[in-house]
Amino acid sequence: MSAYAKLEERFGKIAAVGQAAAILHWDAAVMLPEGASAGRGEQLAALEGITHDWLSDARVGEWLAAAEAEKLDAWKTANVREMGRKYKHATAVPGALKEKLVKCSTEAEMRWRSARKENDFAGFAPHLEQLLALVREIAQIKAEAFGVGAYEALLDEYDPGRKVAEIDAAFAPLEKELPGLIEAACERTKALAASLPMVSIPVERQKALGKRLMKAIGFDFQHGRLDESAHPFCGGVADDIRITTRYDEADFSRALMGVIHETGHAMYERGLPGAWSRQPVGEARGMAFHESQSLLMEMQVCRSREFFSFLAPLLGEVFSVRGNAWEAEALYRGYTRVERSFIRVDADEVTYPAHVLLRYRLEQKMIAGDLKVRDLPGAWAEGMKSLLGIVPPDDAKGCLQDIHWPGGAFGYFPTYTLGAMIAAQLYAAAKKAQPEIPGEIAKGNFAPLLTWLREKVHGKASLLGQGELLKEATGQALDAGVYLAHLRKRYVES
Amino acid sequence: MSAYAKLEERFGKIAAVGQAAAILHWDAAVMLPEGASAGRGEQLAALEGITHDWLSDARVGEWLAAAEAEKLDAWKTANVREMGRKYKHATAVPGALKEKLVKCSTEAEMRWRSARKENDFAGFAPHLEQLLALVREIAQIKAEAFGVGAYEALLDEYDPGRKVAEIDAAFAPLEKELPGLIEAACERTKALAASLPMVSIPVERQKALGKRLMKAIGFDFQHGRLDESAHPFCGGVADDIRITTRYDEADFSRALMGVIHETGHAMYERGLPGAWSRQPVGEARGMAFHESQSLLMEMQVCRSREFFSFLAPLLGEVFSVRGNAWEAEALYRGYTRVERSFIRVDADEVTYPAHVLLRYRLEQKMIAGDLKVRDLPGAWAEGMKSLLGIVPPDDAKGCLQDIHWPGGAFGYFPTYTLGAMIAAQLYAAAKKAQPEIPGEIAKGNFAPLLTWLREKVHGKASLLGQGELLKEATGQALDAGVYLAHLRKRYVES
Repeated sequence: MSAYAKLEERFGKIAAVGQAAAILHWDAAVMLPEGASAGRGEQLAALEGITHDWLSDARVGEWLAAAEAEKLDAWKTANVREMGRKYKHATAVPGALKEKLVKCSTEAEMRWRSARKENDFAGFAPHLEQLLALVREIAQIKAEAFGVGAYEALLDEYDPGRKVAEIDAAFAPLEKELPGLIEAACERTKALAASLPMVSIPVERQKALGKRLMKAIGFDFQHGRLDESAHPFCGGVADDIRITTRYDEADFSRALMGVIHETGHAMYERGLPGAWSRQPVGEARGMAFHESQSLLMEMQVCRSREFFSFLAPLLGEVFSVRGNAWEAEALYRGYTRVERSFIRVDADEVTYPAHVLLRYRLEQKMIAGDLKVRDLPGAWAEGMKSLLGIVPPDDAKGCLQDIHWPGGAFGYFPTYTLGAMIAAQLYAAAKKAQPEIPGEIAKGNFAPLLTWLREKVHGKASLLGQGELLKEATGQALDAGVYLAHLRKRYVES
Repeated sequence: MSAYAKLEERFGKIAAVGQAAAILHWDAAVMLPEGASAGRGEQLAALEGITHDWLSDARVGEWLAAAEAEKLDAWKTANVREMGRKYKHATAVPGALKEKLVKCSTEAEMRWRSARKENDFAGFAPHLEQLLALVREIAQIKAEAFGVGAYEALLDEYDPGRKVAEIDAAFAPLEKELPGLIEAACERTKALAASLPMVSIPVERQKALGKRLMKAIGFDFQHGRLDESAHPFCGGVADDIRITTRYDEADFSRALMGVIHETGHAMYERGLPGAWSRQPVGEARGMAFHESQSLLMEMQVCRSREFFSFLAPLLGEVFSVRGNAWEAEALYRGYTRVERSFIRVDADEVTYPAHVLLRYRLEQKMIAGDLKVRDLPGAWAEGMKSLLGIVPPDDAKGCLQDIHWPGGAFGYFPTYTLGAMIAAQLYAAAKKAQPEIPGEIAKGNFAPLLTWLREKVHGKASLLGQGELLKEATGQALDAGVYLAHLRKRYVES
């Protein structure tokens, strides 16, 4: 057996156990009775322990070294590269330190839940301080091992190979143009009196609509499900994609776009090449690309005028509604209203990147040691003021709103806006290559777009680095210009 | 670390992975999209492979030997005994032979599904022959290793320590008395014109009733769920018990008793001692005892007059029904009707053991080599004639009806009737110890019964062998007399 074959076998086993864990994670969010969460935690820890041992086994290191000398095709070569990356992350940090992190972040997350409820930053700060100290220690160790910066070492877990310089270059034009763009977009919203019909729609009808839209986009219910959970997500495994949403009878609009967003993620997972389904090279190309697929569907496609001309009659049919408020143009205006607000997850397409820029700046400073936890509320207020022109009334609506930092996830935030930028570039390229795409979407036919995405993105999995993948698909490197042009066109010029 | 401590750690890990697998099995039956079953099979095989490797590890054998010399309390001593039993089963048979069995039974089960549909015994026979040959080979190997008979070696997997002589002694009075009892019970049914109201009841109301009954019995929804599946079962893990049922709007009666049956299983699992939840000694005491808990609830308790006086007003409320047919006595008669029929799973309390006796006889002969697969249909017809007085019109309603043999499970059938006998003995003993039990059940109060079961059965887990457990709980060894007296009292004398 060649070293490469041994690696494939090992990573195949790791993936099978990882898939089992993925279903258990879904179950924990969707099905688990309240009293069973401690037990579930132990089951998941047991599986995690197994895959970690298999992955960090010294023999994997030996096989990786030996495989370098073997003659491999492009996919296998990329597979070895991705295996190496996983091995590096698994082995760089001492086990005891990782265990400390898990314990500390579990505790911090628990404290954060009550702190957010009670607007108690002071009570939460010591936990965040402790957690930040551990994250910085780990970042430093990885940075030295990987030969990158500390923040980059954290980024790499979510968005492999992403460089800070690249993000800074991409975010700089946003930082410059966003305040003006937001101002103009808010003016447009006022001028158009944009709003969505506020009618109570029973959950069953919202579900039926969600499934109709999923099918239209190409979701295969032979290989997936739609369920409910407190926090919508796309989980499961490639041949069993499980997306969730939550329903509000008083406001159908969120579940509708939420389902589309998760379907975008789902189509990516489902479109990954089956032949590589249990190998690292067969995985999605990081969180920024993943978010690009959900945002391409939700924002680029399904907030377009073409989409609403498909959606309007469908809403009429499934919701049994009629009237001017349910016409395509009215829906388009309602779904493209812009408003400054404090909460990231409620933000619209134009203000969202401002929320991300703020967090990106702050977490970089925290990791660098240039921002102390105790100074976070002040820095938050200042950043909100300069980026969005508003200041949150309290910490619950400010620096306590997100789960990321309390969960130990530093370096995740930029992927949201990187994803939005990639989405803009991909959709522009798709339309350029196949100009019929928008017209077909107006007819509810997503196939031409899906076919293009399958070929250019989904089917490539992790064969290429993200920079190469974007360049091969669009002919361009990451470029804020395309994204800004899209925002201007939709929110200012139209 | 003592050898015992090493064993506890190892078996704790095995149990955690086994629990993960239990949830995935539940998911496969309740949630899994059709296209994902192959992938799920691979995930489960991966987990199975891990626990098998951990269990059959030679070091486990060494620790077991060393633990014998350590000073251990009764629970730990029993734990080592149960660990040893698992180790023995895991290591007795060569891996290649076990793999052959899995492959062959998977294939046979698949062929059986279509053979049953098409009433094609001839097409299925070669697969069953091949499978039987493998099962006999394994039984022989285990018999030599364990120093028991071949059929006993198979029994031991389902009902640890059970002896053929014991079953034969317990079944002999049944064989003798059942034909007469069945005849008399059928006459009673005719005389009482016993039948249940045939009214369409919406699934939602049946579900609501099921949950009300589960709660009354003591099921804790903080640690469990009720869902739907094609074949009802009790799955999940002790702090997350997941029972399922299926609903027929035209016939509410089956889901009702089905839910009670599975709740009986669930109460056993949930009542196992938490301190031993991930150790072999903390597991239920075999399939016969498990079935005794479901049958105690379904047959002993919930087909009693007392139960129907609790149920009747509840049905009126939840189903919004009224009239004579919904009175307690009418329901009691309807639920205790007896009829000869071909299908085991549809059989009533009186004819059921006849179906089991037939299968027990036949599978013993097959394992002994005294009955060839090609002679099975004839032997089936003959056995049905002598035990039940009827002959099935075809093999689909005869020897093709059960999944057990096609799945490779020989030695499982007797546990159904052993369970029924144990249930009769336990309920008699419980009522003797606490005569208020039936009266409390008439009020919907299951607590006195549950408390007794928790103390005498559930809380003991696998501390004792099954014979001792029964004796300590009831003061008696296995005794068909109690069971027969129960049947006579309910179906002949009342």
